[in-house]
Amino acid sequence: MENKYQENRNHPKRRRTLSVEQYVEGVLNGDRATIARAITLVESNSPKYFHKSQEVLRLLMPYTGNSIRLGITGVPGAGKSTLIESLGTKLCDRGHHVAVLAVDPSSSVSKGSILGDKTRMEKLSKNQQAFVRPSPSGGTLGGVSRKSRETMLICEAAGYDVIIVETVGVGQSEITVRSMVDFFLVLMLTGAGDELQGMKKGVMEIADALFINKADGPNKQTAENAKAEYNRLLHFLQPATQGWETKAYTISALTGNGIDDMWNIINKYKEKTLKSGVFQKRRQNQLSEWMDSLIEEQLKRDFYENPYIKEILTDTKKKVTEGTLPPAQAAEKLLSEYNKNK
Amino acid sequence: MENKYQENRNHPKRRRTLSVEQYVEGVLNGDRATIARAITLVESNSPKYFHKSQEVLRLLMPYTGNSIRLGITGVPGAGKSTLIESLGTKLCDRGHHVAVLAVDPSSSVSKGSILGDKTRMEKLSKNQQAFVRPSPSGGTLGGVSRKSRETMLICEAAGYDVIIVETVGVGQSEITVRSMVDFFLVLMLTGAGDELQGMKKGVMEIADALFINKADGPNKQTAENAKAEYNRLLHFLQPATQGWETKAYTISALTGNGIDDMWNIINKYKEKTLKSGVFQKRRQNQLSEWMDSLIEEQLKRDFYENPYIKEILTDTKKKVTEGTLPPAQAAEKLLSEYNKNK
Repeated sequence: MENKYQENRNHPKRRRTLSVEQYVEGVLNGDRATIARAITLVESNSPKYFHKSQEVLRLLMPYTGNSIRLGITGVPGAGKSTLIESLGTKLCDRGHHVAVLAVDPSSSVSKGSILGDKTRMEKLSKNQQAFVRPSPSGGTLGGVSRKSRETMLICEAAGYDVIIVETVGVGQSEITVRSMVDFFLVLMLTGAGDELQGMKKGVMEIADALFINKADGPNKQTAENAKAEYNRLLHFLQPATQGWETKAYTISALTGNGIDDMWNIINKYKEKTLKSGVFQKRRQNQLSEWMDSLIEEQLKRDFYENPYIKEILTDTKKKVTEGTLPPAQAAEKLLSEYNKNK
Repeated sequence: MENKYQENRNHPKRRRTLSVEQYVEGVLNGDRATIARAITLVESNSPKYFHKSQEVLRLLMPYTGNSIRLGITGVPGAGKSTLIESLGTKLCDRGHHVAVLAVDPSSSVSKGSILGDKTRMEKLSKNQQAFVRPSPSGGTLGGVSRKSRETMLICEAAGYDVIIVETVGVGQSEITVRSMVDFFLVLMLTGAGDELQGMKKGVMEIADALFINKADGPNKQTAENAKAEYNRLLHFLQPATQGWETKAYTISALTGNGIDDMWNIINKYKEKTLKSGVFQKRRQNQLSEWMDSLIEEQLKRDFYENPYIKEILTDTKKKVTEGTLPPAQAAEKLLSEYNKNK
């Protein structure tokens, strides 16, 4: 009977709408259901929820920031999930509250290439001190990145003091994650032969540490050799963080070997950069740059999605690439048409 | 008497204004005085010359592109001028016409840190088959870059078939030069001890070749060692150009040793990338990206220079970096005010 009754309703599971105050109170109390709903609110693509979600965030802002924000990248198969499960569980045991988020622009297309399968972090997901959230769907990296940043703030306000942001190396996603975390680490694998091949362009230069995973069993020596090789290379690159030397380490997410060291390195990093002020400065810059990038993305979107511009852009671009129209003249013409037709 | 007469005039050297047709004809005839005036026209910051300069460019466009465009970067003291003088003179002797331009965003501040002193390339400057133009003054890298790109087109239309664009490693200038040339080379020095220190972030990854200069006399062996070290590193990086392996070489701009090899490498590169289509594709993309960047710069300029935005931006940004206003809310507020007040 109840079933039949529900079927007659448009939204069988419709829940009471929460007010801004209820969202804020629930998050600050660490209520998991409200946290999840607050995240769903900021993840919404619907403009009608934008102002509400921003108001919730504004009221939560004073309670954010009391965490260490870790970014983790690595190729598929590098062992990110095993590492996060292992590190996260250890930290929960020590009294920390750990939130795990993902930035994965591909997940909206391929349906959850990371964190989609919750069973990958089964143990951590069930831990009452942990909160595991898959990558938001919804298009562009810019969109995914805004949602992840805001989710991070909600988790901080809810009392999570370790935020782990995972990403796979798709497009610009590492750069995006680097721009929202304090400490960025790259998880790597050794392989037969050429250890360093396949390193994505520029990734070493934004990392605060490289960890070579699966340094266990017969693979241990290979991993140690790779570590030495990476350290040689890193020595010649400018470090990602002023006053901090990026180094390579070995780790075994499987046996747990090196996980304590990893956490010690992160703490040493935090202590050092807090003392020098680099930590605080980076966070301020990240907020400021985040605002700038939102503005600039919107300015571009307004332009390129203008119906009149859409109509003439292809033809204009064709003339430019064919070399019959100088780019500055083309740009000037498009901008003047835009200003007339918006 | 003549002197006195001139002093009484406001513009003692005022020249007859050229028409668009006169500019175009003069440039196509390779008339040096007209080329110089056409460049001055595109370098002008005055809006009243913009349309005229763009019309000149539009008419010249069909005659552009018949050249190899080389970008050269290197720290001050690496020997860029000596190399360009040596390579340029050699190429003129072989019948080429060589134009040397500079992209140096610092020159407007520090008054010509590169190419400002013409005596640095005295021999080449006097060569009738060469055209040496210092970096345009005028503010932003964006502005300097537009002027240099357009100057390059004028030189090509005038028959110069080798365009050398020089830059010092200031800010984003290498990336800018990379985006306007076919082949990008980095000139380096060996030093005592740590050969690879001081390499600017990301430069190796946009280079088509590294040349270690001053491989002469007692320095020869050190240079050879550095070359081996760089090649080791380059092996692990993705190449800047698809289908072309970036390698390190030694050279002596002073003795001329290795200059012929350099030219052979450049020709081999051109041949290979023309055959694969990478050469043509990159040029098309460069034109298209140039137009996009001009549009996006202007959209940002319109926004940030809007008087109302200027008035409220500082305060808004302060709230964002202090963590009391969420970035997305700040961006939304600024954009909505902008749309109301433009």
